Amino acid sequence: MTNIEQMGKVNLAAAAADLTEFWSQRVLAEANGNLFKVAKGVGSTNWHSHEDQDETFLVLSGRITIQLRDRDVELGSGELFVIPRGVEHCPVAEDEVRFLIIGPDVTSNAAGGKPEWSYAKAD
Amino acid sequence: MTNIEQMGKVNLAAAAADLTEFWSQRVLAEANGNLFKVAKGVGSTNWHSHEDQDETFLVLSGRITIQLRDRDVELGSGELFVIPRGVEHCPVAEDEVRFLIIGPDVTSNAAGGKPEWSYAKAD
Repeated sequence: MTNIEQMGKVNLAAAAADLTEFWSQRVLAEANGNLFKVAKGVGSTNWHSHEDQDETFLVLSGRITIQLRDRDVELGSGELFVIPRGVEHCPVAEDEVRFLIIGPDVTSNAAGGKPEWSYAKAD
Repeated sequence: MTNIEQMGKVNLAAAAADLTEFWSQRVLAEANGNLFKVAKGVGSTNWHSHEDQDETFLVLSGRITIQLRDRDVELGSGELFVIPRGVEHCPVAEDEVRFLIIGPDVTSNAAGGKPEWSYAKAD
């Protein structure tokens, strides 16, 4: 068998509620080379793109606008959107939004658009 | 750029509501070699395992029990669980459940545990 004894289910809303920092991804699970990461956001990140990976957003609660260079994509709870690799984007949320991100790496760093101020809102 | 013009967001509840057949996966999006597939179920599949891929369940509405050989994992709305490759499982749902499955291939076939009767409930 495998290390199945270590596996558990994840309640996504509870995992999101535990987050203390905006625009920081917490890894909940791994499958087929992809990570399931929960995050919350308010305000916006910086414009950025990921050259090496697609990034999938799945909104758990609230609303987020994925700004692309040619249009905006508005996402509400239960909506999913894939940002293909290499496509510039800048997520923005008027009020707090909680979401799942699926992709092979954690991208909540400066290169991944994480704003400086997000580090200060850790309380 | 890419074929970004063809991309759209997906409302998962609406996609699930459109399904006509139980235990059949419909591909909604692809990212990083994985497919995002929506499905609904009632009753159970047959016992099976996937030797080549992990299978991630994310429940959209209702409840499902992922039976494993050594325990049952009960999942409700907003809960996620990864079945590692090679691990035998048999999902069962007392009432209709709708869920997302993430993995590299469509697995709703006989080898993937799809029961014969699922084909008959296509109305």
